[in-house]
Amino acid sequence: MRTYTLTEKFKSIFARRGHSIVLAYDHGIEHGPTDFLENPDSVDPEYILKIARDAGFDGVVFQRGIAEKYYDGSVPLILKLNGKTSLYNGAPISAPNCTVEEAVSLGASAVGFTIYAGSDYEWKQIEYLAQIKKDASKFDIPLVVWSYPRGGKVDTKYNGNEHHPEVVAYAARIALELGADAMKIKYTGDPKTFAWAVRAAGRVPVLMSGGPKTKTDEEFLRQVEEVISAGALGVAVGRNVWQRKNAVEFGKLLGQIVYEGKKASEVLRAAAP
Amino acid sequence: MRTYTLTEKFKSIFARRGHSIVLAYDHGIEHGPTDFLENPDSVDPEYILKIARDAGFDGVVFQRGIAEKYYDGSVPLILKLNGKTSLYNGAPISAPNCTVEEAVSLGASAVGFTIYAGSDYEWKQIEYLAQIKKDASKFDIPLVVWSYPRGGKVDTKYNGNEHHPEVVAYAARIALELGADAMKIKYTGDPKTFAWAVRAAGRVPVLMSGGPKTKTDEEFLRQVEEVISAGALGVAVGRNVWQRKNAVEFGKLLGQIVYEGKKASEVLRAAAP
Amino acid sequence: MRTYTLTEKFKSIFARRGHSIVLAYDHGIEHGPTDFLENPDSVDPEYILKIARDAGFDGVVFQRGIAEKYYDGSVPLILKLNGKTSLYNGAPISAPNCTVEEAVSLGASAVGFTIYAGSDYEWKQIEYLAQIKKDASKFDIPLVVWSYPRGGKVDTKYNGNEHHPEVVAYAARIALELGADAMKIKYTGDPKTFAWAVRAAGRVPVLMSGGPKTKTDEEFLRQVEEVISAGALGVAVGRNVWQRKNAVEFGKLLGQIVYEGKKASEVLRAAAP
Amino acid sequence: MRTYTLTEKFKSIFARRGHSIVLAYDHGIEHGPTDFLENPDSVDPEYILKIARDAGFDGVVFQRGIAEKYYDGSVPLILKLNGKTSLYNGAPISAPNCTVEEAVSLGASAVGFTIYAGSDYEWKQIEYLAQIKKDASKFDIPLVVWSYPRGGKVDTKYNGNEHHPEVVAYAARIALELGADAMKIKYTGDPKTFAWAVRAAGRVPVLMSGGPKTKTDEEFLRQVEEVISAGALGVAVGRNVWQRKNAVEFGKLLGQIVYEGKKASEVLRAAAP
Amino acid sequence: MRTYTLTEKFKSIFARRGHSIVLAYDHGIEHGPTDFLENPDSVDPEYILKIARDAGFDGVVFQRGIAEKYYDGSVPLILKLNGKTSLYNGAPISAPNCTVEEAVSLGASAVGFTIYAGSDYEWKQIEYLAQIKKDASKFDIPLVVWSYPRGGKVDTKYNGNEHHPEVVAYAARIALELGADAMKIKYTGDPKTFAWAVRAAGRVPVLMSGGPKTKTDEEFLRQVEEVISAGALGVAVGRNVWQRKNAVEFGKLLGQIVYEGKKASEVLRAAAP
Repeated sequence: MRTYTLTEKFKSIFARRGHSIVLAYDHGIEHGPTDFLENPDSVDPEYILKIARDAGFDGVVFQRGIAEKYYDGSVPLILKLNGKTSLYNGAPISAPNCTVEEAVSLGASAVGFTIYAGSDYEWKQIEYLAQIKKDASKFDIPLVVWSYPRGGKVDTKYNGNEHHPEVVAYAARIALELGADAMKIKYTGDPKTFAWAVRAAGRVPVLMSGGPKTKTDEEFLRQVEEVISAGALGVAVGRNVWQRKNAVEFGKLLGQIVYEGKKASEVLRAAAP
Repeated sequence: MRTYTLTEKFKSIFARRGHSIVLAYDHGIEHGPTDFLENPDSVDPEYILKIARDAGFDGVVFQRGIAEKYYDGSVPLILKLNGKTSLYNGAPISAPNCTVEEAVSLGASAVGFTIYAGSDYEWKQIEYLAQIKKDASKFDIPLVVWSYPRGGKVDTKYNGNEHHPEVVAYAARIALELGADAMKIKYTGDPKTFAWAVRAAGRVPVLMSGGPKTKTDEEFLRQVEEVISAGALGVAVGRNVWQRKNAVEFGKLLGQIVYEGKKASEVLRAAAP
Repeated sequence: MRTYTLTEKFKSIFARRGHSIVLAYDHGIEHGPTDFLENPDSVDPEYILKIARDAGFDGVVFQRGIAEKYYDGSVPLILKLNGKTSLYNGAPISAPNCTVEEAVSLGASAVGFTIYAGSDYEWKQIEYLAQIKKDASKFDIPLVVWSYPRGGKVDTKYNGNEHHPEVVAYAARIALELGADAMKIKYTGDPKTFAWAVRAAGRVPVLMSGGPKTKTDEEFLRQVEEVISAGALGVAVGRNVWQRKNAVEFGKLLGQIVYEGKKASEVLRAAAP
Repeated sequence: MRTYTLTEKFKSIFARRGHSIVLAYDHGIEHGPTDFLENPDSVDPEYILKIARDAGFDGVVFQRGIAEKYYDGSVPLILKLNGKTSLYNGAPISAPNCTVEEAVSLGASAVGFTIYAGSDYEWKQIEYLAQIKKDASKFDIPLVVWSYPRGGKVDTKYNGNEHHPEVVAYAARIALELGADAMKIKYTGDPKTFAWAVRAAGRVPVLMSGGPKTKTDEEFLRQVEEVISAGALGVAVGRNVWQRKNAVEFGKLLGQIVYEGKKASEVLRAAAP
Repeated sequence: MRTYTLTEKFKSIFARRGHSIVLAYDHGIEHGPTDFLENPDSVDPEYILKIARDAGFDGVVFQRGIAEKYYDGSVPLILKLNGKTSLYNGAPISAPNCTVEEAVSLGASAVGFTIYAGSDYEWKQIEYLAQIKKDASKFDIPLVVWSYPRGGKVDTKYNGNEHHPEVVAYAARIALELGADAMKIKYTGDPKTFAWAVRAAGRVPVLMSGGPKTKTDEEFLRQVEEVISAGALGVAVGRNVWQRKNAVEFGKLLGQIVYEGKKASEVLRAAAP
């Protein structure tokens, strides 16, 4: 039995400054390279690593193929163990394409796994997660759960609204109950309900899922400010950084909010010419 | 071959005084944190452990994530090995998210497993249980079966009434036949039919499932009195304790009924100002 | 390679007198405790063991939970490895809840397995049986196959009649082809067609499945007389013994027919006051 | 790496005279004992072994239960590893009921496996076959693939005609591509199209599947003459031998065609009184 | 950790001259021997190996049965690990019929695996691929992914058009993300969109899938010229070579385009009498 927790280990690597920004980059499998068209350099993982370094982020999230072909150790790595495509139309399920042991060999400092609670395949995903959790404990590597309830009553009761406060709070709690050492959940849209989700997560730190690129820079920065005030550890952001041509600059603005606790209005004012 | 049975071992830990009260707390995954809203402190597992200690309960029931992040050894632990969410709409099934071996490492003194007999997935749950029973024997740890027939003829013949006397007696018998060392079943609503279920359970002790919080304290206390008179070992209660603001006090009233054999009317009278 | 067959081993334990009566008692999981209401003592496995001893039967059939909690070694045990409930409404399938190795540890002298040929899950049950047969060979323990074709063409061609002579003969043959060392099949209703089923079973001895309690004692005794004359090794009887208040006496009448080759009319006349 | 191929090994045992006749006898599970009614002695595997010996066949095909209870080593054995019943109504699939290792222990000189390409379960059968092929290589035992496309486009495009020249040629090729050391396919009905199927099978020898008993002896003898002329190694025949009361005599006529290359008209003329 | 990448290893064997032509020959299982009718010699794998040698190709692609029965080591081998038939009508899935370890024993220098992203069975194919990737890493053998999105939104959004630029770019990216060391994708029809797919593939080289035999030689040669100009490593061609009677000559024309960078019009002019 170790004298530290894997949550502490996670924070020591991915939240050295007390809060965390990780650059998510599994969109290549989840959405396809159309996501890269807005800023075509983003098709290249080297560009992503450079953004993460230059913007001072805590880590990147890669699928095993990207890690194997590109990871250079310059920024801590969360190896995302499973993925599905957006071409898939069946009940939500994302099968592991990499083991925890291989992730460790690929240089990962944490592993990630998405679970779609509510799906007809909920039980099968729990089977996957049980094995991964067992291996993550054995290899002493923190497990980050992407908790995204989908299908089932998310459709029939919540009209498919994955950002509904009850759905997000449930997502947080599921990740805690199933053994996550950190988690990624969607933003409810307001800090009060998000704070309840963070509370439901208990001792497990919460990263907000960045989501699609917002219309204005301000909109996203304000979301981030709100989730930090609501108690989140930080954000796992993808498109809202690398779909912007000014990715590094925008990333530094994010840093001011996440690491220095500044307000969105503050950092924008300071950044304006 | 051991000289004691795992049922005896279970009772030595969870029914030292002859009867048993365990505090159930897997609602975070089964129902979601909306269950905690009535008494918001209940979102925090530390609060739950405190109730169990202060009310003098025999144990708590946690999912593996809660146990890993919070269990402090102050009250014996039943590690619930499987769980499903209420967002899930498919044929009832609850996949294991933790192995017996991991449960032992997490400090559990017993393991719990839910089976929904009657479900289209009945056969798959039996596969899960067979492996868990095999491991529980190997690790010498008592197995508590949450026996909740659901789906199948529970719907077509019993109108979905999971408390029907025939369904509950069948639930008890299934748990005995499949190797439970203790079991948790629903209350039929009257002690005579529940006594038949307890008889069907044979040498395996029966815990009544607490269920949703009753309108009045008296209603629940009377149910508990009835199941004890019907031969149950005790109760596994959740919402009926921690959804009450006076959780510890109410827990002590339960204790008087369960451990001291008092009547509900008796303990309420004594408790009234 | 052993110098005896497992069929010989089976007969040496369960048919010492040349024929066999085993007391079946897996109804607790297959039908539920409503089966015990007619003679409420039958809810208690100790009562069942006593009947088997006092009536001089060759063995009992238990599920692993009953064996673990009650088996006292006083009568040879057939451990029934799989079971399903009558609440289940899906395509027939009965998953193993115990391994052959565990059955040996529980004191079994033979293991039993039900297969519902014709079911949409026929292939999955064959997968189960293949593993069990492999283990039974390894542990040198006879395998008794409960061969109960169900679903598929049993419905579409035979109108659900599981006692149809063609269905029963096919059942016997399937058990032989898949490696049974003994088998349990249903009675066709007449000794001529049942004799063909026994012939289809080849060198593998046949036990007739007792079925629901008949209206009169004579009806069942006559069935047993017929199957013995048709070449069966004996009967596996449950309800027709323990649903009768005069279980032991009736069991002894059965013994006269099965072991001594007497006629039903003979034993009834002798038993009448 | 061995210096011979498993195809050569197969031919050295089952085609010592250059061509092959094996007596198929898995009908007990595939069709049921109604197949034996025409010649009731055929319900007894001892009778089958005697036919094979007296007619001078190269081998018999048994399921594992028949082999275990009856095989006496007097004729080489092909152990058929999988089987399904005709009561089964679902998408075609035949699950293995015996491992290659057990087949070797049972005295087999080759193992057989049926695959129904085109079935909704095509992928699952390929999973089975992959494991069997791996084991057969390890145990140096030839693998005979019964290649019977069924379901899928065999229904929608070929109207269920399993003897269609395109279906049979595809069947032959599938067996070659998946690693068969010998194969069994259905006869197209004319030697020209069958010759193309034999050519598609490449270096893997082809046995024709005997099929249901023909109305006249001549019809079957002529089919066999045609397939031999088309390049087949021989035939795997069941009903067309043991459903005939003159099984051994008919078997010897077959031998003249298969081993001596005689014409059907020739052997019938010589056999006529 | 090795000092070279498996992509480099792949190129050192299959693209010695800087680009690659491999002769695909798994059509026997994928389409059936009707594909061989146009040039009947093509039913014989020896003919295929001869074409590959005489035309100077870099390798051949065989299923395990063809490799085992015919591979002579004269041309490097890509062992295609999975295959499905065109008789199959269900949701796209191709199960592995050979392990990586067996492929190495069969003399393979690379292994191939098809994945149909978008299929209802997408998750199951990812499970297969995860195991294969793990084994390929262990055995230090390059993995070539045939990335063919099919079913799901390929039908509902792209009308079944597997050559749609978005589908092909997604296919390339999926192969990169899942760990391919080389990949095979379909041609979009124009070099500009194909260049984006090659870009999405990142550091993983791209082979164009030859497809059905074109009406004219020129049409195919021009496609190959375009994909080379778009950055592809080369082509995996089958029918467009061996369905032509002048297979070797045509193969040499291909070689001029692929290895020498000539234009289609150039090589055709030079080849004309």
